Parts: sequence; C-alpha cells; structure tokens
Amino acid sequence: MKNDFVVTPWEVKGEIDYDKLVERFGTQRITEELLRRIKKHAKTLHPMLRRNIFYSHRDLGWILDEYEKGSKFILYTGRGPSGDTHLGHLMPWIFTKYLQDSFDAKLLFQLTDDEKFLFSESLSLEDTKKYAYENALDVIALGFDSKKTEIFLDTEFIASQYRLALKVAKRVTFSTAKAVFGFDNSSNIGSIFFTSIQSVPAFLESERQNKAVPCLIPCAIDQDAHFRVTRDVAPMLGYPKPSLIHCKFFPSLTGSDKMSASKTETSIFTTDAPEVAKKKIIDAFTGGQATIKEQKEKGGNPDICSIYQYCFYIFEEDDEKVRELRESCRRGGILCGECKRELAKRVAKFLEQHQKKREKARDKLEEFVIKD
Amino acid sequence: MKNDFVVTPWEVKGEIDYDKLVERFGTQRITEELLRRIKKHAKTLHPMLRRNIFYSHRDLGWILDEYEKGSKFILYTGRGPSGDTHLGHLMPWIFTKYLQDSFDAKLLFQLTDDEKFLFSESLSLEDTKKYAYENALDVIALGFDSKKTEIFLDTEFIASQYRLALKVAKRVTFSTAKAVFGFDNSSNIGSIFFTSIQSVPAFLESERQNKAVPCLIPCAIDQDAHFRVTRDVAPMLGYPKPSLIHCKFFPSLTGSDKMSASKTETSIFTTDAPEVAKKKIIDAFTGGQATIKEQKEKGGNPDICSIYQYCFYIFEEDDEKVRELRESCRRGGILCGECKRELAKRVAKFLEQHQKKREKARDKLEEFVIKD
Repeated sequence: MKNDFVVTPWEVKGEIDYDKLVERFGTQRITEELLRRIKKHAKTLHPMLRRNIFYSHRDLGWILDEYEKGSKFILYTGRGPSGDTHLGHLMPWIFTKYLQDSFDAKLLFQLTDDEKFLFSESLSLEDTKKYAYENALDVIALGFDSKKTEIFLDTEFIASQYRLALKVAKRVTFSTAKAVFGFDNSSNIGSIFFTSIQSVPAFLESERQNKAVPCLIPCAIDQDAHFRVTRDVAPMLGYPKPSLIHCKFFPSLTGSDKMSASKTETSIFTTDAPEVAKKKIIDAFTGGQATIKEQKEKGGNPDICSIYQYCFYIFEEDDEKVRELRESCRRGGILCGECKRELAKRVAKFLEQHQKKREKARDKLEEFVIKD
Repeated sequence: MKNDFVVTPWEVKGEIDYDKLVERFGTQRITEELLRRIKKHAKTLHPMLRRNIFYSHRDLGWILDEYEKGSKFILYTGRGPSGDTHLGHLMPWIFTKYLQDSFDAKLLFQLTDDEKFLFSESLSLEDTKKYAYENALDVIALGFDSKKTEIFLDTEFIASQYRLALKVAKRVTFSTAKAVFGFDNSSNIGSIFFTSIQSVPAFLESERQNKAVPCLIPCAIDQDAHFRVTRDVAPMLGYPKPSLIHCKFFPSLTGSDKMSASKTETSIFTTDAPEVAKKKIIDAFTGGQATIKEQKEKGGNPDICSIYQYCFYIFEEDDEKVRELRESCRRGGILCGECKRELAKRVAKFLEQHQKKREKARDKLEEFVIKD
C-alpha cells in the first residue's frame, strides 16, 4: 500500500513513495539535462544531486535561464523552530550552502516562531523564540557567508513582512487553504493565515529592489504545499513565481520514517554529546541478518538500513565508496557492527567539529540575524 | 419587518431595531443607576448618554467599580480608514473625548489600514494608509490630549501588536470566526485572521504594564462582534475582558440608514466645504409635509427627519431646545426650510472651526501617532 502515506507541512506519515509525490503535487523530476546545466555553473555536482536526494523541482530551468542571462537568484529556506536541530534539518541547509557558494547567491532564512506557536498547543512564543535562536546557531555553524545571509525570526521581523503578507492573504481564499493544508472548522485563525507569512521571503527581495528578483527555494518536499500557494499568488502581486528544488526526508535511525525531533532516541541532534550519538547509532535498526553466520551467507539489505542511509545522505561523499559499501553489504562482506562503528566515528567527529563552530556562532548572531 | 435588518462590522442594512440588537448580541441597556454613577464621577452627563444614543454596554458597571477602587481604565476605539471622515464617524469620538476628559483616561486609537485593505477589492495599502492619516487629523482636531492619546496604523505598529495578535488567533477557531462574522469558503485568509489584530489594543496596556488594566471600548454597536471574540479570549490569555459602551448609528441625510462614506451626497464629510455641506442639508430628507399649508395644519414627523436627527445627535446640546424643536415641528410651528437653514448654519460653522483645527493637526501628528 505505497499510496497510503501522508505528506503535509505538519505531518509526514506512512511509507513514502517519492515518485507518487511528484505526481500528487505536480512537480517535475530533476533531469540529466538540468544536472548538466547546474554542473556547468557550479563546477561540481553536489552528492545530494548526484544521488537523487534533491530529486524534484518547479521551474528550476527558468532559474538557470535567468542566471545564464545574468540575473542572479536569491535563495530562501527556513526552519520551524519547534525543538532542537537534528541531522535531518541540516541536510537541506548543507545543500543550500552549496548553492550559495556555487551561484554566489544571497540567502534569506526564515525562522517561523509564529507558525510553531500557532500549530502547537504546548509551545509558548518564548519557547519557539528560544528554539529559533538555537537553530540559528546550527545554520551559522554550517559556514554560510554572513555578507550574503539574512536570518530572521518572524516575530522580530514582522514589520518588514506584514504588508507583503497582507497582499498574499488577500489573494488566498479559505477554500484554497482548506484544500492545500486540510484545515477545518476547528483550525485556529492564525494557522489559517500563516501561509501568507511563509510566502513573504519569496517576494521580499523583489520588493526591496523594486524589480523581479528570481528566487529559488531548497526545501524538503513536505513544504511544497506552502509554495504552491505562493506561486499561485505571485503573478497577481506582480512578482516572479519562486522556483523550488525538493529533497527527500532524511531517515530516522529506525530505517524508515522521517527523522523527527519528537522521537529523541532515533534522531541525532546537533547538540547530542558525541558519545550519546554513538550509542544511538549502535542501537540503530539495520538491514542486517539476525546472526553473523546468516549475514555472511545471505548478505544484508542496505535499502532498509538506517546506517547505510546515513552514509548515503550525508556521511560518505565518495560515490564509489557508497557503491562499494552497498555491494559489500549485499554480499555479506561487511557486518553491521563494523558498519555502525565506522558511521559512529564519523558522526561523532562531525558533531565535535560542528559543536565547536556552533559555540563560535553565538558571537556571530548579530552578523546574521536581522530585525525590524 | 423590524427583524429584517443586518448589523455586522462590514454591513449595516435595513431598518435597525436597537432593542432587538441588544437581545441579539446579548448586551445590556445602560440603566439609570449606571448613568447616576457616571455622572457622579464625570460631573456632567454627556448629551449622548442623556439621549440614549450611547445606549448599550457590556460590563460598564465593572469599569466603574474598578474606577471607584482607584484602578483607572484605558479607552480604546478606532477607525477603519476606507475613506474620508464624516460626521457619523465623529460621533463616538466626540463621546470618547468626553470620557477621556471626565475620567482622565489614556486612549489607544487603532487605525485598521490592514482591515480595510483586506476587506475591499479596490483599496490598496497606499490608499488605506492615506485615509488613515487623513482620519487621524479629524481625531486630533477634536481636542484629545496628546499626553494621553496614542494613535497608530496597524501596518506601522505591527511589531508591537503581532505577538498579542498571535496569542488571540491561537484561541479562535474558524468555526467561531464563521459564526460571528459570517465568513465562508470564499473569504480571504487575511480577513479571517483580522479580528485578532482588532483585539490587541484591549490587552496592550495590560501587557505593557504587566498588570490587569481595565479597558473600556466606546464604539458603534456594529463593532460588538469583534469584541465578543476579544472578551471570550481574554481569560485564556490572563487579561481582563474589555468593557464596551455602544452607540447607535448616526443617520444619513435620507433620514434613515447609517451615514455611509460611500454615499457622498447624503453624508457630510469633515472636509466638505461649508457651502457644499449647506447644500446637502438643504437637499436633505425631512419629516415635513408636501406644502407649507399642510405642514402648518398637520405638523411634521421629527422621528423620520434627518434634520431633527442631526440636532438630536450632535448639533443641539440643550435638551430643552431639542424638546422645543420636536414639539414645534409636531404642531406645525416650524417649517422645514427654517429648520434646514438653522442646521446648515450650525454645521457650516462647525466645519469651519473643525477644518482649522484639522489643518493645525498636521503639525501635531508626531505628538499623537506612535510607530514601531
């Protein structure tokens, strides 16, 4: 029953068929031709593109057309600050950094503390603000260029966003919001309005520069719903439709599902002590057999293995080595324990380095965070 | 069919039965006892109270209780800036000034340029901002105390209002908004959210002072819908429910209907040249007979006469003179022409004086208007 899954900005459930999502949402797959064009300008093709992790798009060709004509695009992505950052959140940001570096692109990074307050019964505005600043440290730690990056919390940047949000809101009916997001009579009126705010950064640079500035939004595919609304409204406001490039979800340590901040034992947070992260990896679900003997005889199944997925998504940049790992697993040439220990080492090393940069980022917040 | 009328914040239609409105909305009539208590503190009772123009309330007794215990209330009222100010708009503001003077009360005056943009297909944010500043001149011209009055445009004061608006919005379901305001699938998502913004000033002073500050809202009865929502939400946010004091609608020059800015020929604007206003009054509907002879024989009907209503609502402060006018009209002792000329003279004089103050108000905007 691979059709029995749910993907909305607030819920991801079931075993996701990414091909079906492309059909459902009406997006496009990233073609070889597009990859060639990206590589031509970026020089290198990011592993997440080579591996089809960023796999779907809207109007990516147009962004490249404009770029080739000399019209630079801005990048827009963000984070709903409902908890600590985990590796799944980092994934699209790592890719966004590659785009910033490769295309010399300005980045607008929206922290939707308003959204997470409106959609969570338990979170206060103080909570979502606190998380927003913690999440911002992770963004900065990834090495974005402070001269080309603006990070903002909605509640601290609303004066700069409200007028554009009103213009969006005026063009979106309840009927549309209901169809796209599944609202009903019990939805609060803030949650219904919220998508207007998420649209704003797509138009902000065009408004500031008073000319059409192309905008590319790298995001996980669950956020597509918001930007379908944004794109529908754009021509009515006289702005170009933002383009999108969508990634799949980073898996949890159970081997399936999207990594979720609410399941702390099967997610690795950027603030986890390296030893804690190692322990989580050692406890993770793999595609291995019950015994060493069986593993050696029958081989494992990397497709359902969280350890393999981790290497594939983030922790092994070399395609050849990924291929070797896969083969070796399949033919029983490597045991789960070895695999786990190798990944644990890499993740621990990554966390150590990231956490140092993250602490240094506290002093850089002012360089990155803009307020009204 | 006096039940066949509509009163919402965005539509007033039919012949209004103000008694039925009190029942429909579940408000209270202002009792003699309340009037006595107001007079005790205010020294004088405003004609609009004596004449039952401000005729309905919610929790006015509580406001007086608090006042008597030494806890001052703030006043909150406002204007949806969709056009020029007419005399109908001035009416509750004149009364609000009386309350400010009598109770030494701070006033928050909200100009909902966001609302009027969201609810009008044709108005731009530039339009509603322009009207807002024009309307603000009329507020200031009435003589409010700049030390006790804060006027703000929503789009220029949103950073100060957004967090409170989110807290309200989180507690209001679409179901409630639909029931109170009559929204449907075609309503835009900004209009659905908007009532959250209109609630904010009722809580703002409590938030600023970090203690429960009583708030009294003088307004025309059509605005009650918003504040029913505000009052329902208040306890959930830990703020006192705002109290309300409601007035009837200032009539148009047709003798019935609410004066409406969209009907320019039957409304008198504060910016009308005195001669133009005079002409409108001379052309107005009266309760008089078709001929002088008939008028003298049968007398006129002041109850349906716009000229009489104008005197009653604003232009004759002396109750005895209003009574005399009424009597004289009924027994045919005064002709419509005389009555019109007398009112025209008074209105022209009022406009001349108001327009001078209004021009001077341009230099005072900075004293009154607060921005983020």
